[in-house]
Amino acid sequence: MRLVDLIRKKRDGHELADSEIEFIVKGYTTGDFPDYQISAWLMAVLLRGMTRAEIAALTGSMLHSGEVLEWSFLAAPKVDKHSTGGVGDKTSLIIAPIAAAGGVAVPMISGRGLGHTGGTLDKLEAIPNFNVNLSAEQMRKVLAACGCCLIGQTSSIVPADKKMYALRDVTGTVESPALICASIMSKKLAEGIDALVLDVKTGSGAFMKSEADAVHLAELMVETGERMGKRVVALITDMDQPLGRYIGNALEVVESVEVLKGGGPADLVELCLELTGWMLYLGGRAESLQKAKDIASGLIASGAAFEKFCEIVRLQGGDDKALTDPSLLPQARHQEDVLSTSTGYIERMDCEKVGVASLVLGGGRERKEDNIDHAVGVILHKKVGDRVAVNEPLCTLHYNSSARLDEARSLIQSSYSLSTTPGNKQRPLVHRVIGELTMPAPTL
Amino acid sequence: MRLVDLIRKKRDGHELADSEIEFIVKGYTTGDFPDYQISAWLMAVLLRGMTRAEIAALTGSMLHSGEVLEWSFLAAPKVDKHSTGGVGDKTSLIIAPIAAAGGVAVPMISGRGLGHTGGTLDKLEAIPNFNVNLSAEQMRKVLAACGCCLIGQTSSIVPADKKMYALRDVTGTVESPALICASIMSKKLAEGIDALVLDVKTGSGAFMKSEADAVHLAELMVETGERMGKRVVALITDMDQPLGRYIGNALEVVESVEVLKGGGPADLVELCLELTGWMLYLGGRAESLQKAKDIASGLIASGAAFEKFCEIVRLQGGDDKALTDPSLLPQARHQEDVLSTSTGYIERMDCEKVGVASLVLGGGRERKEDNIDHAVGVILHKKVGDRVAVNEPLCTLHYNSSARLDEARSLIQSSYSLSTTPGNKQRPLVHRVIGELTMPAPTL
Repeated sequence: MRLVDLIRKKRDGHELADSEIEFIVKGYTTGDFPDYQISAWLMAVLLRGMTRAEIAALTGSMLHSGEVLEWSFLAAPKVDKHSTGGVGDKTSLIIAPIAAAGGVAVPMISGRGLGHTGGTLDKLEAIPNFNVNLSAEQMRKVLAACGCCLIGQTSSIVPADKKMYALRDVTGTVESPALICASIMSKKLAEGIDALVLDVKTGSGAFMKSEADAVHLAELMVETGERMGKRVVALITDMDQPLGRYIGNALEVVESVEVLKGGGPADLVELCLELTGWMLYLGGRAESLQKAKDIASGLIASGAAFEKFCEIVRLQGGDDKALTDPSLLPQARHQEDVLSTSTGYIERMDCEKVGVASLVLGGGRERKEDNIDHAVGVILHKKVGDRVAVNEPLCTLHYNSSARLDEARSLIQSSYSLSTTPGNKQRPLVHRVIGELTMPAPTL
Repeated sequence: MRLVDLIRKKRDGHELADSEIEFIVKGYTTGDFPDYQISAWLMAVLLRGMTRAEIAALTGSMLHSGEVLEWSFLAAPKVDKHSTGGVGDKTSLIIAPIAAAGGVAVPMISGRGLGHTGGTLDKLEAIPNFNVNLSAEQMRKVLAACGCCLIGQTSSIVPADKKMYALRDVTGTVESPALICASIMSKKLAEGIDALVLDVKTGSGAFMKSEADAVHLAELMVETGERMGKRVVALITDMDQPLGRYIGNALEVVESVEVLKGGGPADLVELCLELTGWMLYLGGRAESLQKAKDIASGLIASGAAFEKFCEIVRLQGGDDKALTDPSLLPQARHQEDVLSTSTGYIERMDCEKVGVASLVLGGGRERKEDNIDHAVGVILHKKVGDRVAVNEPLCTLHYNSSARLDEARSLIQSSYSLSTTPGNKQRPLVHRVIGELTMPAPTL
């Protein structure tokens, strides 16, 4: 078998056999194959596509390129959630404790923010001393103690994806549904989970701007997970405006705590209950989705979910007092309102621009190696459907440096589109659920 | 301008601007851009294609990546021929001397054989002491002295193509008409020529097996040459069976000399007169193609063409006595006839197999770094339309090592398809001429 022949085979639109895909992934991971051959193959994959069988083989080969975690000492079903990323999406911080409090184990491995989207690890690190870099042994202890751990990628898990993603990033081969699916699913399945809830965002703040693209990716991921014997559903959810009202790392911790304490904005609460409901249902903790959502609501109302979050924070070295006293979280030195230049009703928002506004204040990364400022961000006062008067604040910017303040202000202002008539509706939060119909009943 | 954005632009099917293509070629030639980005771009080009304007820009950028030869001290028009390669195609050795004797200058830069096809440099090197590696100064002297030089690529000419071709070879990105066109045309135009005759082969021994592919490539090359102000025609010629009867480096020198002395097989003579006719016509040495072909015939009949070849050989250090005494050329120690296993009429030949038979005897290269044996090869006794009786020789193998003799014999036998009825016709030699209609009348 020669790599160049496999490149040509994919280039010419043929289906690669499982053994051929494994040959490619293994050879690349071990360093036998040079980047320049793999990048040509990746471009051929992007332009020619992959069948469902090829995607499953790619996911499997990537998954087994490194360590697959194993939690047989835990009786609880292992369930995780993955989001394709958006603006103000702090659901992981909320649903992981609720689900763990509800009796499923959540061995969650998350990423960092890049571009206009935030990352769970950055948000967690806004909590003083929170350690996302646990050893395998530490991870095992935390998970055994509280049923959840919230950590970053380790070098032993899916090394093929690390190499391949870095290459895709600089060769224009990121935007392939097949490659995105294999990248996400291999990393999630390497967590050793039994079930997975996917939150595939669509809209102006999502990577998949169009609903059709989001649905396509969701279908690929659900089928890939099912082929590998996992229970998987994907929710197509709205990212046409930020989720909740707080954007920025420490600010999102504050809003997450609000939800865990029974408050918080309606859209964020609704999505968290949907996602946790599915996690508990797939994990066999309820006989219907509705009952699972009721359990989740109950865990918030009883305080068990918030207490679970405090427990996780403590076990991972963080200061859980910062959860009850937000003044212990990083604070921006300056605040400034961005005022509306006209009167009307918010018709739509360019969600990506709001994310970029937070980024230029220092809350995000333009490049992977950039440092971020956990304190800064944006608090929205107006969202779609709201009325706003001229000179009324649209949002408040939290910032430490005014270097790019003008840019942030102008991004926020141009992100809002106003109409003179009321009645602009927020889009439904959950557009569709993929995989629900093929889902077998849970084993209680 | 960022390379990754240009990769994405081509990936998404958009046309690159001239400046963008120049940015890519320059950056790659200087070593600023890594192979892994360029190979992804090449795959995107292969799968998305290029417009005529993009191909011209790529050709121009590659052409100017190195030295462009300049022959203003020569009054004669500079004309060359390029063939896409085939089996038994020794036309360069014949037409260069005829055209030079006819008053056009031929600064011909050729390549080596690879796979089933031979290369002009290898054939020339079968002549004792013939030196294809001339310095720029030596090339200038030889060209000034006899109106022709026959040399190999130098490192100063089109360095972009050298790097890019090596990369294409291992990344499955050879078979792109746009990239093939730019590679060929940049190298030919770097010779500083005024006019070019392209011999685009089609059939079982050609790289372009289908006529449609050959015509497409020919059209791209003619248009690219015209966009750069050159007079260019392309002949689509037959390579469904070997050209002439001799295949192998020294053997092809022998057959070339036969043609230059007024003999040789009809198909080879016909194609050489067509090609030389076009060279003289494009070079303004005749007022019609027919008159140009008559001039070429006259130069053979008068002995001027053969004398010119002897002169070139002498000027490039070779022993021209080997042209009149073939025993001075490398001789294979063994000969063996391959006999027909049945009686009938040759219906068709798998031309590529004949080329591979010569290769496995040592006359060609499987990989670029292989050494070749100039003495070995195949002399065909039967071609399409001929009658053959059982046990009558189809060809004679000339060989030094019997290591792969069985393989060569079996390749030859399976290359012939026989029918029981006579009347199998050789295909016409020149299928079409591309560019003739747009060709302005020559300036005499």
